[in-house]
Order: sequence, then structure tokens, then C-alpha cells
Amino acid sequence: MPSISRKGHLMPESPIRKLVPYADKAKARGTKVYHLNIGQPDIETPAVALNAIRNFDMKVIAYSHSAGILSYRKKLAEYYKSVGIEVSPDEIIIGAGASEAILFTMQTCLDPGDEIIIPEPFYANYIGFAVNAGVEINPISSSIESGFALPPIADFEKAITPRTKAILICNPNNPTGYLYSKEELEVLRELVLKYDLYLIADEVYREFTYDGLKHESVMHLKGLEQHIIMIDSVSKRYSACGVRVGNLVTKNKEILATALKFAQARLSPPTLGQVAAEAAVDTPPSYFKMVLDEYLQRRNLVVEEINKIPGAFCPNPKGAFYVVARLPIDDADKFCRWLLEDFSFENQTVMLAPATGFYATKGKGLNEVRISYVLKVEDLAGSMKVLREALRVYPGRTL
Amino acid sequence: MPSISRKGHLMPESPIRKLVPYADKAKARGTKVYHLNIGQPDIETPAVALNAIRNFDMKVIAYSHSAGILSYRKKLAEYYKSVGIEVSPDEIIIGAGASEAILFTMQTCLDPGDEIIIPEPFYANYIGFAVNAGVEINPISSSIESGFALPPIADFEKAITPRTKAILICNPNNPTGYLYSKEELEVLRELVLKYDLYLIADEVYREFTYDGLKHESVMHLKGLEQHIIMIDSVSKRYSACGVRVGNLVTKNKEILATALKFAQARLSPPTLGQVAAEAAVDTPPSYFKMVLDEYLQRRNLVVEEINKIPGAFCPNPKGAFYVVARLPIDDADKFCRWLLEDFSFENQTVMLAPATGFYATKGKGLNEVRISYVLKVEDLAGSMKVLREALRVYPGRTL
Repeated sequence: MPSISRKGHLMPESPIRKLVPYADKAKARGTKVYHLNIGQPDIETPAVALNAIRNFDMKVIAYSHSAGILSYRKKLAEYYKSVGIEVSPDEIIIGAGASEAILFTMQTCLDPGDEIIIPEPFYANYIGFAVNAGVEINPISSSIESGFALPPIADFEKAITPRTKAILICNPNNPTGYLYSKEELEVLRELVLKYDLYLIADEVYREFTYDGLKHESVMHLKGLEQHIIMIDSVSKRYSACGVRVGNLVTKNKEILATALKFAQARLSPPTLGQVAAEAAVDTPPSYFKMVLDEYLQRRNLVVEEINKIPGAFCPNPKGAFYVVARLPIDDADKFCRWLLEDFSFENQTVMLAPATGFYATKGKGLNEVRISYVLKVEDLAGSMKVLREALRVYPGRTL
Repeated sequence: MPSISRKGHLMPESPIRKLVPYADKAKARGTKVYHLNIGQPDIETPAVALNAIRNFDMKVIAYSHSAGILSYRKKLAEYYKSVGIEVSPDEIIIGAGASEAILFTMQTCLDPGDEIIIPEPFYANYIGFAVNAGVEINPISSSIESGFALPPIADFEKAITPRTKAILICNPNNPTGYLYSKEELEVLRELVLKYDLYLIADEVYREFTYDGLKHESVMHLKGLEQHIIMIDSVSKRYSACGVRVGNLVTKNKEILATALKFAQARLSPPTLGQVAAEAAVDTPPSYFKMVLDEYLQRRNLVVEEINKIPGAFCPNPKGAFYVVARLPIDDADKFCRWLLEDFSFENQTVMLAPATGFYATKGKGLNEVRISYVLKVEDLAGSMKVLREALRVYPGRTL
């Protein structure tokens, strides 16, 4: 029997998915599981997007242009204009989700063996894309004490090697919720110019900012037109993860031409998803107001409740819909499994994502978990009560 | 400015797309262009699939399972049963088109530097997937004289090296329309066992067979359960290329587990496309009868008309909706460009795909073109008249 590829062996299994069988067993026992582990929002997809699907009137569901439907890219350029980003439709390539857009970007910009610097903790699937492209991730640690702010410039400079080709940030950040400031982006700008690197910015949570703060896009950084690739997606913005429509944006024509060749090899991004995404651009402001009000309440509740738990600490992040919290536990993987396997309180438990899966450095994040606040406020309140009780009785508690 | 990756440089540009600007210019001059160059059928998507989209009633367009919606995989297993293939839902992984399924397969089974043998001419995008996976294609030539039958076993054995890991066939074949016989598949079976290789079979044109012949799936080959990965797609079967729903099928659990990790890294195949694809399984037999009757007429017309042209030769393929024809021309790329740039007959011209793009061996296919018979019979007849006239006056004709 022929062997499996090395890449196949290297591909990580999602740290969250490993827990799914335990969650299933808990449910089979009749225990209610609060899912704080997922990135799938419970918010409804805007009606304009759903209606566009219901009104789909073509007789053939045909391929779209490999770079995406032109009318959608035009609409997307209008959307970018509305958030202060000047970009033309031919500076956009649509992918099957941000996932494919990141993969196109890595494959276009980096050779196997090249290094990419990513502040950790970071979105776990970046590891999969890097393995896929044969790229090495060079993590530099951000710390919970600073709320996961950008690590100091000296840490970046220490990490840069002759193989370093790019820096990747996620802003607002998954998993930490951290929102990078203009000053932090300026630090990255200097680094990128000094070392002639690419700057890849995953901005899929752009809309999700709180406390009056506004998102700063890397597209506003001056003099970096040839260095910047911005990654975007409609999954979170319109709570439409299943449409599989994301995109890359860059002013660099060589990247555009090369990424298009990867896009042509797979023919077309999903046509139906693009129809929904194009319509979604007309989502009324009232939708976002409703969504942000809801998430703000949720964030406030989660941050407040965790910080009330003895020995726990949760920064107050300004973006996305995640927090990474420090808990008084020995081992996040063990704890998250224990929650599902051995614990229940009033016949309920919680499913969390161990933060270890978001660090590339072994041993980091052992006492941290990621919590997605994608449940209704009353369910979140219930889940926080369960978490508090769990930490009172967990055998591996460190307090 | 940082450089582009080597892979980016290696990625081929589609040989057909290079002609698109010339086609656009011809149209701008008011010339009617018959598109015989594309793989997008003009056939309508079945009503059951379109209705499923119009009746989509979820409030959130959510991620599906990374391997695809379970109810769809169950339905797909029923479909396979109906064509004599026994497979369970967990032996199926849904991809964004056959494109992603092939990529998952190559990445799972082959290491960078490994070799894959493909009879040429072959589907041009295999080159892109191979570059993407870092895999080398080792082509062995099939010939137009035999109608592009499977090359002799000796040719395969000559091509096998210590790095050879897989054989890839497309059956029925794009671009040749050739339908492999049971005997030919048995030859491959022996080779695969003797040299311990993977056998990857792209069967996306399964339904398109003519003259009373039936498609033979590699899934019927005995003793190859651990070696076979079958690639499939709904794009052609239901004329729904834009849904981006394909899949791989294998009994090899290690491949399934590994491919699933690649699938998890990109989270989910398109949800809306899967909804359409699941409904499409209930397409009535009358639809296929209508489609096959139509394609049969078209094939007959194209084969007959080309063979009437002095110096031209076209085999009579038994499957898919393509033919590769030999024309009395010096250079297919030049000829196809000339058709668009310098020629018109009664203000009409034709766009063909130069066969050079389907050969990995340099210099092959110079006097061959691929013709997709995806136009109505009357348009096909018109296009054949134009082609005949073009070959009468083309300056580079060899007759």
C-alpha cells in the first residue's frame, strides 16, 4: 500500500475538533453543552442576501470569472470605498472563503522553506495553510498581560532571518479580539520597508469593533502598495460563513497576475455564494447596529464574569467576537476535555477551545482558553455560571 | 519589492485564456464568435436543483461539515449505488469542485518531487494542481490514430521511476472524449498492483457515454481498495459548474483521514452549492435522456463535418462532450489566434482550444485542436462551415 505524503502527516488536526466526540457523548448523556468553541455566529444572515438566493433566476448555474463575478467585485470596491479603502475591481481576487485567499497569497508570495512571522496566539488554520504551502511559521509571542498587543519591534527583528518573507497579522484578532492601533501598524510599516517583506493582513473582522474604536486597515499605510495583501471575507461580516466567499486585495500587479493563475487552475469561486455576497453589500446600517449592540453586550458580560472568577483573568478586547482568558488550570487541553467528559452542573457544561492550539510555541497557552461569544446573552450568562462552578471543582485547578 | 514564488512563476497560464482578448476584439468588430473552446455546457441545470436554491429556508448560511453536509453525502452514496458503486457516506469528502478534490488527493498522496503518470493529452488544469502540490507530471502519449486509447502497458513501464507514486486517468476523457474499456482498466489494475501505486480516476463525465456503451468505474477494480481515489463532480452531470461541488471517494481510511485535515483547514465546502447538489440527485431520468440525445446529435455532427474537411481527421469518441481533431495546420496556437484576429466568414468565426495546452510534451498537439460540442446543433453546424472555410484560406495550412 503506497504511503501518505509528509505534508499529510504534518497537517495539524484541529484542536477543537478533537473535542467533538466528547461533546457528542456529553449530549448523548442528556447534558446541555454551551458551545463557546466555535467561529460560526448565531446572528441571522441579512435578508437582502437570503432574498438574492431565493430570487436566483439563471437557468444555468455557471462558472464565474476565475477572479470572481465582475459585478460583485465592482460592488465590493464600492463597499471598500465606504470604509475608506480605495481599490479597483481588478485589484480584488475572490476566493472560496478567506481560506483560499490566504492560500493563494502564501503560494504566490512564499517559496517552500520561506518563513512567515505571525504574532501568537493566532488563528489555528494558518498552520494548515502554511503546511499546505510548505512555509515555516516563525511565531513571536504576544502576552495576555498587555491584552495581546503587538509584540515589541525588537521581538520581530530578533525573529527575522534571511528566509523571512512576510509578516501576517489578523486585525481585529482571532483568537484574542485585539484591535491593532494606527501606531502599531506604523511599526509594522517600518519593519516591512526595512526588511523588504510582504505584509499580509487578515481583516475579516473589520466591522466588529467596540468602545467607539475604529478599525485601521493596512491599506492605509503609505508607501507599502507593493508589499500589502489584505485578506477579507463575507463570512463574519454578514454571518454567512457557508457562502465560501472571501477575497484578497492588493495593488501589486505581479501578485494579482500570479494569484489569478492559481485561481484559474480551480476555474471559479462559488457562483451562488457570490450572488448572496453581492446582494449583502446592500445590507442596511441598522443590521450592523443591531449586531454590534448584541456583541458588545456579550463581550461585556463574558469579560466581567470571567474576571469575577478567582484566579481567572480576561483582557477587554476591542474587536472580533473572541476573548482569550487565563484560567487557574494546569492544562487547557485536559480541562476542556474534562468539562465535556467528567463535569456537569445542573446538567449543563461548556465547550471551550484550548488556547494551546493557537500557539505555535510548544508549552504556550497551557492555562488559556479561547471563548467565542456567539451565543445569546442569557445562554452566555448560563455558560459563565457553569464555567465558574467547573473551576471550583476541577481537579487540576491551580488555585 | 519582495519577489514572487517559484511556484507562481511555474503556474501555467491557461492556453485558452490567452486567446480571450482576441475573441473580445473580434466581438468588438461585430464578428460572431462560436465558442467551441469551453467546458461550460449550455444545458439547463435541472429544475430540482434550481428550486432547492429558490426554496432555501435557513436563517443563517452556515458552514457545513468540512467533509460536506452529511445528508448530501448520504444522498450521493445512494446515487453511486444507482450506478453500481458501493460506497458509504464516510468514504466521501466534498470539495469545492473536482478541482479541490484533486488537489486534496495530490497533497495527501504525493510528496513534492514525486511523479504522477498521466496519459496525454490531458485536462490542462492538472498541470496547475501538480505545480501547486509540487508534483512532477510524467506524461505518456496516446495517439489520435487509436482514438486516444490507453497507451500500451510497455509505455507505462518505461515511464515508471522510483519517484512514481500514482497514475491519473480521466474517464471519459477531457479533452479526447475517449471512454476507457474494462480491459484497459484491468491493465491499469495490474500496473498499480505491480508497482504499488495510487490510481486516481477523474470520472466527472461518467454520465456522458454514447453508442450504447456504459462507463466502467475504477471503483469496480478488485483488490485495489487501498490504491484508488475516484474524483467526481456535479458540474457536468447536472450542468451546474458554478455550484463548486465535487468530491473524492476512496476506501483507504488513511487517505480519508488525511484529506479531511486539508478539508478542515479550509473549514467547509460551499453550503449553497451542496444544497443544490443534494437536490440534483433526484433529477429525473428524462433529463439525462434529453441531454444525452442532444449531445449525441452534436457529436455526430461535429465528427462527420470535420472528417469531411480535406486533410482533417476526427476520431469518434464515446464519451464526454469533447473531441480532439487533427487539422491540416502548421501550428494550432497560431491557427486559433488567426481565427480570432484575422479571419471571418460571413462575419463569423470560431474559437477553438489549441491541443498544445493539453500535452505536457513540448511539440505535441501542434496540428490538433480540442472542440467542445456545447452549442446547439444549428450553431455547431454554422461553426463547422466557418471552420471548413477557414482551413481553405489559412496561410499556414499544410495541405
